[in-house]
Amino acid sequence: MEEDRRLFWKVLSSEYIHKDTWLTARKESVQMPSGHIIEPYYVLDYPNWVNTIAITKEGKFVFVKQYRHGLRSVNFELCAGMAEKTDPSPMVSAKRELLEETGYGNGTWSQYMVQSANPSTHSNLNYCFLAVGVEKIQEQELEDSEDISVHLLSAQEVKQLLDENKIMQSLMAAPLWKYFYENKL
Amino acid sequence: MEEDRRLFWKVLSSEYIHKDTWLTARKESVQMPSGHIIEPYYVLDYPNWVNTIAITKEGKFVFVKQYRHGLRSVNFELCAGMAEKTDPSPMVSAKRELLEETGYGNGTWSQYMVQSANPSTHSNLNYCFLAVGVEKIQEQELEDSEDISVHLLSAQEVKQLLDENKIMQSLMAAPLWKYFYENKL
Repeated sequence: MEEDRRLFWKVLSSEYIHKDTWLTARKESVQMPSGHIIEPYYVLDYPNWVNTIAITKEGKFVFVKQYRHGLRSVNFELCAGMAEKTDPSPMVSAKRELLEETGYGNGTWSQYMVQSANPSTHSNLNYCFLAVGVEKIQEQELEDSEDISVHLLSAQEVKQLLDENKIMQSLMAAPLWKYFYENKL
Repeated sequence: MEEDRRLFWKVLSSEYIHKDTWLTARKESVQMPSGHIIEPYYVLDYPNWVNTIAITKEGKFVFVKQYRHGLRSVNFELCAGMAEKTDPSPMVSAKRELLEETGYGNGTWSQYMVQSANPSTHSNLNYCFLAVGVEKIQEQELEDSEDISVHLLSAQEVKQLLDENKIMQSLMAAPLWKYFYENKL
């Protein structure tokens, strides 16, 4: 909206203070419409992310479990990953991640939600997909840096994880709560 | 779980590459249980965050709107902020943020959800609160860096924002979808 554009900040200066595969940070000097200058303001540039609510033909939810070093914890998660720059679309990235991390594929895919982990600090988005009727079509193809187990959960088991606050990653909890809302599960 | 502890990584070395009010980043060398070493691995240390689903005595949801420079967009949001180290609890932080950013207070408060924006990269948590029966008790007290408008929305209007994917921040969308699920709205 036009009204919203008036709230935008002006970038007075911008420089990369770190640029690496896993962390790219910009340090900026920005000016608010009021004239107030904020400096430094940091923005993190990650590639877009993807994750998928994948449900098998038998109605089981395909979850993964792995250690996450930021939070130093192991939690049930949706299969997730990065959209490579060479991927023609986020859905292609999500299908590849599901296949490599879990061995599941096929099914009917649709985009379900677009989210930001933090619009203050992150310039990227997370694309969530819904894949219904997936089936196991190959073995996992993990990288050396991945130690991922696959778990087929019933709707009731997923609901229990949500109720017990065990889906810690909000980019996964948001679409799952939406799914349970919309499907009256 | 004991089984989960076996998945934890060992930190071989750790150093701060950036330490500032708004960005603290650690660069680590970590070893997986398989022996595989990942280096560098970056962890972002932010203070804990808080946000609040605040509902007035008249049943309106207290939302805010502000420009977010990471995503370069203006979106409807729950009132949110940082838990200061000196705050005795996250609930105290959330009450202060709601009062300062919106002028609303009182009501009955409970912790509603604990989430991570990204367990891979973030060591902090976001605490979401539910505050029912809040009322306007003072004017906004904004800092120079804040340009925040307050909006009282009906449940139907919030549901429409959710349906139209206009609550972009997943730390806010997750508890809102949960709330609408649990209250059959």
